[in-house]
Amino acid sequence: MPVTDRTRVTRLADRQVVDRQVLHDVLDAGLVAHVAVVRDGVPIVLPVGYARDGESVLLHGSTGGGLLRAAASGVPVAVTVTLLDGLVYARSLFDSSMNYRSVMVLGTAVAVPDALKEEALRRLSEHLMPGRWDEVRPPTRRELAATVVLRVPLDEVSVKVRATGASTEPDDGEDRAVWAGVVPLTLATLEPVASADAPRGVPVPASVAAAASRFEALRPELHA
Amino acid sequence: MPVTDRTRVTRLADRQVVDRQVLHDVLDAGLVAHVAVVRDGVPIVLPVGYARDGESVLLHGSTGGGLLRAAASGVPVAVTVTLLDGLVYARSLFDSSMNYRSVMVLGTAVAVPDALKEEALRRLSEHLMPGRWDEVRPPTRRELAATVVLRVPLDEVSVKVRATGASTEPDDGEDRAVWAGVVPLTLATLEPVASADAPRGVPVPASVAAAASRFEALRPELHA
Repeated sequence: MPVTDRTRVTRLADRQVVDRQVLHDVLDAGLVAHVAVVRDGVPIVLPVGYARDGESVLLHGSTGGGLLRAAASGVPVAVTVTLLDGLVYARSLFDSSMNYRSVMVLGTAVAVPDALKEEALRRLSEHLMPGRWDEVRPPTRRELAATVVLRVPLDEVSVKVRATGASTEPDDGEDRAVWAGVVPLTLATLEPVASADAPRGVPVPASVAAAASRFEALRPELHA
Repeated sequence: MPVTDRTRVTRLADRQVVDRQVLHDVLDAGLVAHVAVVRDGVPIVLPVGYARDGESVLLHGSTGGGLLRAAASGVPVAVTVTLLDGLVYARSLFDSSMNYRSVMVLGTAVAVPDALKEEALRRLSEHLMPGRWDEVRPPTRRELAATVVLRVPLDEVSVKVRATGASTEPDDGEDRAVWAGVVPLTLATLEPVASADAPRGVPVPASVAAAASRFEALRPELHA
């Protein structure tokens, strides 16, 4: 995975990852990207639901949204996905940290053409709510027209990972009797809440039942 | 809370919130902000640990980091905090959505002066790891010098919240026998992992023990 001047990590360079599988894994584990564009010289950054599709990310939203409309015009975009994996309690505040996996994609977005939009939305749906596509009716023509899907290629990317315990500075006066370690963090599901208008006796579908175990499977290993 | 041309929500305007208490609550519930700056005409956006301090947010990082160094130079920044609260399973994919609370702060950052840096770091520490400050030694002069803390005022902000169930389009062919509802999402802690060099018998401190219940208290109510 090539590192450019724009994607080179200058601070804590050992956290930079150039393994394409890690890039894919991080993108496949997240749900929301923070997408930035420049408008009138000022950056704006907002959360957008996304999915990885091969060697690109798909972003989707309403045709009425300002951010994606700006992104669709071919201006440079940054797409960042961050997974927060833990709070690192070192014996000093200076060495305290967070464990995380983060990907930043730089580039320009292109609109997915109408003929391919349903396929792209299916890919988004299968990422965000696996199995749901086949449980509900297909999108209507009107719904497709009201939805914008953008594709940003994974050409220029930066991947950073911190997945270790608390670092120790042997000569820096830390008190060994102070506990040090990691509090792992994870996204978790709570019990599903059925809509008030759901008819009695409609069971929770497979897609919803699967959501909880999905996040469990995505928890990273803590490295020594 | 004033709405400017840059912070007005154009799409789904009913999700825009102008209650300052909600702004504070969202910022107080998050750990990581996505901070965007423009570099050579291109947006970059990276995760940064932050804390709210009254009517501003504090960002902190190493003096060696490129993003905060750029932000400290007085260029426009965007600071976005997003809390992902649920997956919304509607009876169509078009109406399926996510519940979230999101804040975007626009403005410029100013470096916290050296004389106030320790106080600002204490504020950050108390937000990110409540109680930890008093369990470990204070920062050294060298550590303070290697840390940059920026302050961004909460002058121009946009707050969006979706906290409801699945919306229903009565005339749009949805099958009422399909389950609809919300799978709530939350950040959760797993069991703390002590460092390998922790002496035997050192108990998990109060700050670490409190981390789990903290996230439980931050879960939002689902509105009808």
